[in-house]
Amino acid sequence: MLLKGKIPVKYILNKIKFEILFISLYTTAIWFAVKEFNLHHTSIPLGVPAILGTVISLLLAFRSNQAYDRWWEARIIWGAIVNDSRTFTRQIQCFVEPDYANDVKKAFQQRMVNRQIAWTYSLGQSLRGLNATDGLERLISRKELHYVSSHDNVPNALINLHGKDIKNMLEEGWINEFQQVELDHTLTRFCDSMGKCERIKNTVFPVTYSFYLHIALYFFLLLLPFGVIEYIGIIEIPLVTILATFFLLIEKMAVHLQDPFENKPTDTPMSSIARTIERNLKQMMQTEQDMPAQVKAKGYYVL
Amino acid sequence: MLLKGKIPVKYILNKIKFEILFISLYTTAIWFAVKEFNLHHTSIPLGVPAILGTVISLLLAFRSNQAYDRWWEARIIWGAIVNDSRTFTRQIQCFVEPDYANDVKKAFQQRMVNRQIAWTYSLGQSLRGLNATDGLERLISRKELHYVSSHDNVPNALINLHGKDIKNMLEEGWINEFQQVELDHTLTRFCDSMGKCERIKNTVFPVTYSFYLHIALYFFLLLLPFGVIEYIGIIEIPLVTILATFFLLIEKMAVHLQDPFENKPTDTPMSSIARTIERNLKQMMQTEQDMPAQVKAKGYYVL
Amino acid sequence: MLLKGKIPVKYILNKIKFEILFISLYTTAIWFAVKEFNLHHTSIPLGVPAILGTVISLLLAFRSNQAYDRWWEARIIWGAIVNDSRTFTRQIQCFVEPDYANDVKKAFQQRMVNRQIAWTYSLGQSLRGLNATDGLERLISRKELHYVSSHDNVPNALINLHGKDIKNMLEEGWINEFQQVELDHTLTRFCDSMGKCERIKNTVFPVTYSFYLHIALYFFLLLLPFGVIEYIGIIEIPLVTILATFFLLIEKMAVHLQDPFENKPTDTPMSSIARTIERNLKQMMQTEQDMPAQVKAKGYYVL
Amino acid sequence: MLLKGKIPVKYILNKIKFEILFISLYTTAIWFAVKEFNLHHTSIPLGVPAILGTVISLLLAFRSNQAYDRWWEARIIWGAIVNDSRTFTRQIQCFVEPDYANDVKKAFQQRMVNRQIAWTYSLGQSLRGLNATDGLERLISRKELHYVSSHDNVPNALINLHGKDIKNMLEEGWINEFQQVELDHTLTRFCDSMGKCERIKNTVFPVTYSFYLHIALYFFLLLLPFGVIEYIGIIEIPLVTILATFFLLIEKMAVHLQDPFENKPTDTPMSSIARTIERNLKQMMQTEQDMPAQVKAKGYYVL
Amino acid sequence: MLLKGKIPVKYILNKIKFEILFISLYTTAIWFAVKEFNLHHTSIPLGVPAILGTVISLLLAFRSNQAYDRWWEARIIWGAIVNDSRTFTRQIQCFVEPDYANDVKKAFQQRMVNRQIAWTYSLGQSLRGLNATDGLERLISRKELHYVSSHDNVPNALINLHGKDIKNMLEEGWINEFQQVELDHTLTRFCDSMGKCERIKNTVFPVTYSFYLHIALYFFLLLLPFGVIEYIGIIEIPLVTILATFFLLIEKMAVHLQDPFENKPTDTPMSSIARTIERNLKQMMQTEQDMPAQVKAKGYYVL
Repeated sequence: MLLKGKIPVKYILNKIKFEILFISLYTTAIWFAVKEFNLHHTSIPLGVPAILGTVISLLLAFRSNQAYDRWWEARIIWGAIVNDSRTFTRQIQCFVEPDYANDVKKAFQQRMVNRQIAWTYSLGQSLRGLNATDGLERLISRKELHYVSSHDNVPNALINLHGKDIKNMLEEGWINEFQQVELDHTLTRFCDSMGKCERIKNTVFPVTYSFYLHIALYFFLLLLPFGVIEYIGIIEIPLVTILATFFLLIEKMAVHLQDPFENKPTDTPMSSIARTIERNLKQMMQTEQDMPAQVKAKGYYVL
Repeated sequence: MLLKGKIPVKYILNKIKFEILFISLYTTAIWFAVKEFNLHHTSIPLGVPAILGTVISLLLAFRSNQAYDRWWEARIIWGAIVNDSRTFTRQIQCFVEPDYANDVKKAFQQRMVNRQIAWTYSLGQSLRGLNATDGLERLISRKELHYVSSHDNVPNALINLHGKDIKNMLEEGWINEFQQVELDHTLTRFCDSMGKCERIKNTVFPVTYSFYLHIALYFFLLLLPFGVIEYIGIIEIPLVTILATFFLLIEKMAVHLQDPFENKPTDTPMSSIARTIERNLKQMMQTEQDMPAQVKAKGYYVL
Repeated sequence: MLLKGKIPVKYILNKIKFEILFISLYTTAIWFAVKEFNLHHTSIPLGVPAILGTVISLLLAFRSNQAYDRWWEARIIWGAIVNDSRTFTRQIQCFVEPDYANDVKKAFQQRMVNRQIAWTYSLGQSLRGLNATDGLERLISRKELHYVSSHDNVPNALINLHGKDIKNMLEEGWINEFQQVELDHTLTRFCDSMGKCERIKNTVFPVTYSFYLHIALYFFLLLLPFGVIEYIGIIEIPLVTILATFFLLIEKMAVHLQDPFENKPTDTPMSSIARTIERNLKQMMQTEQDMPAQVKAKGYYVL
Repeated sequence: MLLKGKIPVKYILNKIKFEILFISLYTTAIWFAVKEFNLHHTSIPLGVPAILGTVISLLLAFRSNQAYDRWWEARIIWGAIVNDSRTFTRQIQCFVEPDYANDVKKAFQQRMVNRQIAWTYSLGQSLRGLNATDGLERLISRKELHYVSSHDNVPNALINLHGKDIKNMLEEGWINEFQQVELDHTLTRFCDSMGKCERIKNTVFPVTYSFYLHIALYFFLLLLPFGVIEYIGIIEIPLVTILATFFLLIEKMAVHLQDPFENKPTDTPMSSIARTIERNLKQMMQTEQDMPAQVKAKGYYVL
Repeated sequence: MLLKGKIPVKYILNKIKFEILFISLYTTAIWFAVKEFNLHHTSIPLGVPAILGTVISLLLAFRSNQAYDRWWEARIIWGAIVNDSRTFTRQIQCFVEPDYANDVKKAFQQRMVNRQIAWTYSLGQSLRGLNATDGLERLISRKELHYVSSHDNVPNALINLHGKDIKNMLEEGWINEFQQVELDHTLTRFCDSMGKCERIKNTVFPVTYSFYLHIALYFFLLLLPFGVIEYIGIIEIPLVTILATFFLLIEKMAVHLQDPFENKPTDTPMSSIARTIERNLKQMMQTEQDMPAQVKAKGYYVL
């Protein structure tokens, strides 16, 4: 997630520097050609790029909106992960009957809550294409780590371990049948959140949509100098360049918003959210001795 | 699902080659007529196609948005099928009480999970108008295959078999009453996902909407040469052709997005998702001996 | 529901023939008046209708979108009715304990499933303003038919009979308490779907919205000839007529989409969906002897 | 709710008569000033109001959409109240075990259903700022009327009485524990519907949004005459007036849609819906002796 | 929340006074330069800013819509908090079995309801960046206050205390197992509402989106004088200034709507809603002796 008021100009321009360079050289060439060879009959009425401009603006606005919706849905899912992790911890604490040896119970609860923390880190890492088991050794046992490592989908394996532990709790008589079903609901919500993230990650934004719009945008920008050449002289070079910059930046923004799990500065800040979850759950379990610090921003963004 | 950066130009142009040819011949004819017979009074002010262009752009943008929503809903449904298949497997594993002969239990669970895998393949095939029972013989018994083959709606028959097995589990005392209701919830979700896919498949996008817009788009494109003829010479031929290409491509894109179960490259990648489900569920059941490989992309798309 | 590629031109033009006739006569009159009496000073700049055209296009696009949403919601509700009818049948089959005389049980289940089929037909007919009990005599007993006939709201009375039968099943000990609550959930979903259809049926689309837009559209169309008269001669007559046709058709389309239960060709195909439900449920119950055929399309549409 | 095709012109014009009068006088004054004092240099290019017109049209269209969403949400909530009232009555009828003295049971059920009817009337009246206990004396006992009168929020007090009666039913053994929780769910839905109505009622549509748009609209209308004055003579007076009328009416429409509980003709027809609920529930309870008639339309609207 | 019809002009202009000043000076400078040095060749066709104006208007409209959605979601969440607080109180009252010493029970219920009131105040304060425990001493015990003060997330700690008390109620046999699960659902909804508020609070609106739009808006405003300079004289100064004011105000409005928890006049009125909840719950508990007054508006807004 980019942070307010801290984005370096370099970061922004880096994305489209070649496009801008090309557009400005192209406009300069046209200006020069028209001036030198007096090619005034190549001018076209401004109304033609304007018609194209209208439809491109509309599609660009809708596309930005759809990209925004994907970005916002990703954030909503991670918000739900925060909520459900807290709910899970509360249920683990409040459902288990108290007439058992406190130590056994406590250790068991602790194991489940730690595994839940592991799940959030693991999900974030696997979505970003990193090693999904990285850093889990401080949260789950060696045996469990070995078990989950053998799965394609590590977070799913962790939920399965949750399910088996809940079954054990029922067998031990620590929870009753309604509570098992209730905890299973919470696992189902984790499973849904995970699957929704995978859906956003794995579904390419309709390629033809992006591609046609991209081509049309270039065509519009290449047409633009011919539309203004008759009226304004050398000013057309910066004018067209700045207009092009704006349209290209808006398009780039949509591209970045629509893919929020790419290990880029525009990502959903999953590491930071996972850290918040760890802090919250540890405080709920009152195991604050090994409390990690909040994730710090990396200059102009936080991951 | 089309893949990023791999679409051949041929695939794109194939869709509208006759339309483009017609528009370019038509524009050439007008240019020739105006030039030869000096029909300058046939020119119309650019403002008229511009008004039409605005309303067409708007309706095209909204229509693309609605098509996008259908496409995205289809993907959301298949995402839910992934999640619910995992949840179903977890519940089958974690609800069944362990004090039974392990082998009987295991075989029973295996049968249900295999049937769930069969359901995902079968649903995808029936939505695409293919034989819904194709390839199911490796996943369900001959008897069940015979039973489901006699139904109009094969996936629905498979859910019914799930329901009967869950009833058997309750009767055997393997699961308790809450767990039966809970598993029934999961079946209800499968039933809902299936019905939602059928709804998208069977509901024609409002025909009048598409049709009026299509006619208006042609009228706009046929009008366009008259709007620009006075200002620009022979350049109007490529200009109008490119503009027409863009508008026609955007319209085609919407048509493809709105019908995501047509066994075309723009489909929701149902075969690939079903394969992922098979891999996930088999890993959860630790029956990885007969693990199929991931579905490979077919050139520029994956089904 | 209109079918793809089959709509006769007559059906389309019938809706707006008087409007088109009026607009073309009006434009002809203006063209004649300007030509004969040389009223060139009545011309107005094209920019004025263009401003009005922009706002009308926008409101028309949003209104089409809202009409589309109503139409799509109606279809979603009927999709949910399909899903819940299947779920209901599965639950009736899988919840009832098997240690009862098979015949009594079977007949009871059959009665409930037939009543469910009756409900879907009855709901469709009452939404279309037809007799809600028409044709139910083949699905429910004479006594029940008599009972429901005395109600304003026949489908609601049928759900009530479902509720009473489920209560009987609990009293008989055929289902347990959780299963009763679960079946009651399914009834609640039927009740919700029914109420949602009634909401769409009984809620007039904001009258002022339609009315102001309609008036403004006419004002725009009446203004248009004055905007183009100076530039183009007799061509303005077909030009304005075609533009008017397009705007009027888009408006009409929205009007039809927004009211999907009017017993018109643009309706949600409720009869056809009810027939599909009947076929599905009968196959699930394996009572295929009295299986009805699928509903056939009536020329260019299906009801 | 306004009714189709019955709105008197007076009702429409009444809302904006002063604005129209002002705009027409203002335009006349400008026309006169330009004509008499030859102030042609005050003319501004039509492109300037056109730019403003575009952004105002867009914001007006989005604002209408947001107002429409509020209006439609209000209607959805009242649709849910209809559904849940029917569901509540069905549950009251089908959950109570029948092995009790029929008379006591019947009277108790009757009391709850009547209270539910009272709730719908009371909610509608309190949302409209009327006396929330008006007319309840025919539906609830004097004692309950006295109890609820002492609350700020009468409908909430009625739900509380429902809750206490359900608790009594459990204590008496008339319903089991699952059924209590299930009935409590239904109460929770009533509570949610009530709160959603209060949210719409109490949340002012963003004041700055409406205000800036209103000011900009006036500025646009005041600018418009200068944009057209050069081209058209006295015709500009009716032209600008009609354009202004349209923009102002669209704005007013949005204002009315966004506040659907104001005891105005554009309200959600809560009285009429409450009456429908009363008729439905009484028919379900077969107490049709004191059946009220349907609410009649008051000329062009129904409340 | 700003109140209707009471916003002082000063409040509005304060936000953009420097921008307006700058734009008017800039426009004056250009007017002066053109007039004095006769730089007419710097004029650019109005069509160029118009193209930019169209795309900016579109993006501004979509951005306002997205900001509005955030604002409305915030209000919906707080509406849900109202509903769930009432539901929680009803459940606390109606689930607890009455065969216990009334005083103990009553005190316990009172403690929970007071803690719920504390939670709403605490959540509002922590979202606004104020001390989350401020003023809670009149609602929860010193011991609980001490406990929650040690947490990062005070409202979450309060929900945890709720969970522990509900567990105690189950252990005491005051509620049954279904009722515990049901009350736990209500806690889960509180947890979800809290997390959703945090999501809105902590998620920066996409920075690049705001930033590019902001830059483009300025570029558009700086370009505008060159577009109109040829046609109109000194009038361009107020004209451009007013246009700029409008665009800048709309942008500012979106900025304010998108962040509804900033302790500003445009906030969701959380203090006022919390007070309403306190009044409602106390009336439900009939502990009206210490009833606080409704929150009063602070001039033109209410917090």
